[in-house]
Amino acid sequence: MFQDATTAQINTALESAYTAFLSYRYQSGAQKAAFMRTIATEIEALGPILIETAQRESNLPEARLLGERGRTCNQLRNLADVVAEGSWLQATIETALPDRQPLPKPDIRNMLVPIGPVVVFGASNFPFAYSTAGVDPAAAWAAGCPVVVKAHPAHPETSELVASAILKAVEKCGLPAGAFVHLHGANFEVGKALVMHPKTAAVGFTGSFVGGKALFDLANQRPVPIPVFAEMGSTNPVFLLPDALEKEAEKYGKMYAGSITGGMGQFCTKPGLLIGTAGSGLDQFMVALNAAIEQTAPVAMLHPGIATAFREKRANVLAQTAVAVEAETTLEYAPNDGIPSAASVSAAEFLQNPTLHQEVFGPFSLLIKCQNEQEMSQVASHLEGQLTCTFIATDHDLHAHRDLVQAASLLCGRLVLNSVPTGVEVCAAMQHGGPFPASTDGRFGSVGAHAIHRFVRPLAIQGFKDEFLPAELQDANPLGIWRMLNGQWSKQGI
Amino acid sequence: MFQDATTAQINTALESAYTAFLSYRYQSGAQKAAFMRTIATEIEALGPILIETAQRESNLPEARLLGERGRTCNQLRNLADVVAEGSWLQATIETALPDRQPLPKPDIRNMLVPIGPVVVFGASNFPFAYSTAGVDPAAAWAAGCPVVVKAHPAHPETSELVASAILKAVEKCGLPAGAFVHLHGANFEVGKALVMHPKTAAVGFTGSFVGGKALFDLANQRPVPIPVFAEMGSTNPVFLLPDALEKEAEKYGKMYAGSITGGMGQFCTKPGLLIGTAGSGLDQFMVALNAAIEQTAPVAMLHPGIATAFREKRANVLAQTAVAVEAETTLEYAPNDGIPSAASVSAAEFLQNPTLHQEVFGPFSLLIKCQNEQEMSQVASHLEGQLTCTFIATDHDLHAHRDLVQAASLLCGRLVLNSVPTGVEVCAAMQHGGPFPASTDGRFGSVGAHAIHRFVRPLAIQGFKDEFLPAELQDANPLGIWRMLNGQWSKQGI
Repeated sequence: MFQDATTAQINTALESAYTAFLSYRYQSGAQKAAFMRTIATEIEALGPILIETAQRESNLPEARLLGERGRTCNQLRNLADVVAEGSWLQATIETALPDRQPLPKPDIRNMLVPIGPVVVFGASNFPFAYSTAGVDPAAAWAAGCPVVVKAHPAHPETSELVASAILKAVEKCGLPAGAFVHLHGANFEVGKALVMHPKTAAVGFTGSFVGGKALFDLANQRPVPIPVFAEMGSTNPVFLLPDALEKEAEKYGKMYAGSITGGMGQFCTKPGLLIGTAGSGLDQFMVALNAAIEQTAPVAMLHPGIATAFREKRANVLAQTAVAVEAETTLEYAPNDGIPSAASVSAAEFLQNPTLHQEVFGPFSLLIKCQNEQEMSQVASHLEGQLTCTFIATDHDLHAHRDLVQAASLLCGRLVLNSVPTGVEVCAAMQHGGPFPASTDGRFGSVGAHAIHRFVRPLAIQGFKDEFLPAELQDANPLGIWRMLNGQWSKQGI
Repeated sequence: MFQDATTAQINTALESAYTAFLSYRYQSGAQKAAFMRTIATEIEALGPILIETAQRESNLPEARLLGERGRTCNQLRNLADVVAEGSWLQATIETALPDRQPLPKPDIRNMLVPIGPVVVFGASNFPFAYSTAGVDPAAAWAAGCPVVVKAHPAHPETSELVASAILKAVEKCGLPAGAFVHLHGANFEVGKALVMHPKTAAVGFTGSFVGGKALFDLANQRPVPIPVFAEMGSTNPVFLLPDALEKEAEKYGKMYAGSITGGMGQFCTKPGLLIGTAGSGLDQFMVALNAAIEQTAPVAMLHPGIATAFREKRANVLAQTAVAVEAETTLEYAPNDGIPSAASVSAAEFLQNPTLHQEVFGPFSLLIKCQNEQEMSQVASHLEGQLTCTFIATDHDLHAHRDLVQAASLLCGRLVLNSVPTGVEVCAAMQHGGPFPASTDGRFGSVGAHAIHRFVRPLAIQGFKDEFLPAELQDANPLGIWRMLNGQWSKQGI
């Protein structure tokens, strides 16, 4: 239905985005905020057709899509608030000391500036929140960067609708057309051409390891390498500590069945590995988990490709030596449905089989049974980079397992206690990203205001008079932002 | 005299650094600051032997080395102040809202944490400030990362002396031995093995494009890619605008002769390209520049390899079509001396000859003669990423050339007005780094407190009670640092 973008269209898109960059980068925080708020309003104004289209294309239920639309508009408005306020750009001022010995000190001022057009790849599992007007585009616009979005081929019509809302906002706000360009591309060649285009300054991607790593490798082979922020999934290990299981195994078993199967497990923070030491607490946890999983209704996955991949990867795990099925839904499932299920394996086997370390995207989790705490630590020290690590633990457990918590903190972008890693809170303290291979650059995240920092760089300005400085760096602090002024945070003028 | 590190030594170095990381990362800001201040004291305690050794190995004059030692100790103490104060780690706290509808909000706290052992390659042109205890190691220690330094083969004895001071500080502060490891390696294989070691988490490098890019490419080919912060030099274009030249051509000509030839031009911020429009102002500027260059005494360069490279690259530029020598020192020079000199070429020729865009590391600069302002803009839009761009301009010039200033701001990490780019001020507002190829990642810099941010990543901690949180994130704010508390900067407790 939608044609892949041609080479000519890709060139036009990036040239247009670059031209837009030359003016869009000078939009004030207030102007960028107005643009982002207008996008949110226009998305809401699309009404039920957007939800219906996304339902049809993604198989996601209405309630989830209504919630995700809300989250997407909130993200736009939250980032709008951040840029409107303005302190995010880390204005830093060191005033001159003309009489300093042996040399005078010059006046130097510094702020974050946008890096250029950002290419964003829509994600299959969040047709709104990580797609066409999702957090990557929102962060880029907030930074002052135009955005070229490649729609995810699983929900092209949804993407077109959201794009129409953005284009209205571009027009209403009087922005250059290239502030947003929308393309389709089911073929990898389109993505490759977008990453390799000389005018592309950065890339945002949420999806599979194979896809993200391929884009990362391409970007590093360019004559001018550019950053690729790929969030590539995670197995999100959950450490089940004994005292907590002894006290509340059933509660946590039920809680985790919900986290593993909710949204048919199609979240990058889905708990894919459960790690516990053998004992009655773990047994009770599994009884509750298994019972809940067996009663969980299968639902169609996002698209047939994802359903096929889920079944293949799950079957591959189940075919490994010493892997036992723990639970599987007892309800009927159709060909494109997920299969709510869990399996188990010994820690010794897990440690020697890399296949078991791989993410199975969908409603499935693997229990790693440890003989003792030492084996649990061994598992922790052999895990790859993760978005999250979770502990189910009492205070007693935490005191007794300090080293394990510290080992987990090396692995992940977020440590969670006595909750589930799914349901990522969108706030300033969130980190959604983690050490490779969870993401290509664990120094940045793709949730909250921090996401803006992926698309900026510091620029120092030395010796310029007030009238030639951007408002953010002028003596009087006309924007009233927080600035680091001669070593002190301040909202004062000079 | 010093043997290249063996594979076994490299493995031991990184394993030892990683072991140290597991405890060093929990050192408090005060403890890390004490360590860095002790290093500075121990470097000063080395006394004249350090300066004498560096003089012998680098050919740099005593006064310069005394100044550089001061800068190096200041850097250590400045970064010590920053980590002792503690606000740098961007503590961010969002407290729980248990009654929020439809879902409760969890307590989430976030701070920057160190990423692991950092490998630093000493630089030839700054035997102190960008070498063994230079800004890269200082930033890594400040972040909480152990450091493995590969001494620059041009000043191994100097590096050994500085290393001895650091080792004393490690001992005096009771730190694990792996907090600092010193190795030699004239062969590229040593550098390669250091970058490829699985326990290496990041790399700091200051030197040539060829060297830095090779390390960057290796790091991206690892099973787990790591960041390489390579500062690879720059031609630092200087735009000479007409009104300023008409008024003060002679002053600026003399000033620039000093900046081009000072330290025999062996600074990454040396102005390598002068860009002006033909006219009497530019002629006067060149008369003053040329006269001063002709009177500049040649001095031995850092080492014979650099002298050879300078002569080859300079000869190559002079051999290009339509390049004319403008000035050359009239004083005698020895085989390893730099040759203070300048040449010129038309903008049309410059635009079509990429060889002329390359850095010539040493006391040489190329004047690009433009026919008009339009040609000057064309030159600006064809330049590669730079550490600095400078304008010699009156207010009138700046008003008349807004587009040119804006184009230059896209190119560089620092814009300078009516001064020289050399003599980098070490302060919080400085940016030393720029778009590729000036550095591998223009989002970061290698001067000032900002350098710490290269070696950290955010970690979110969700749902943990006060007693299990690091002091930086505890309710009472026991360290009294600035924190982003529920969206507001604050030093208050909760």
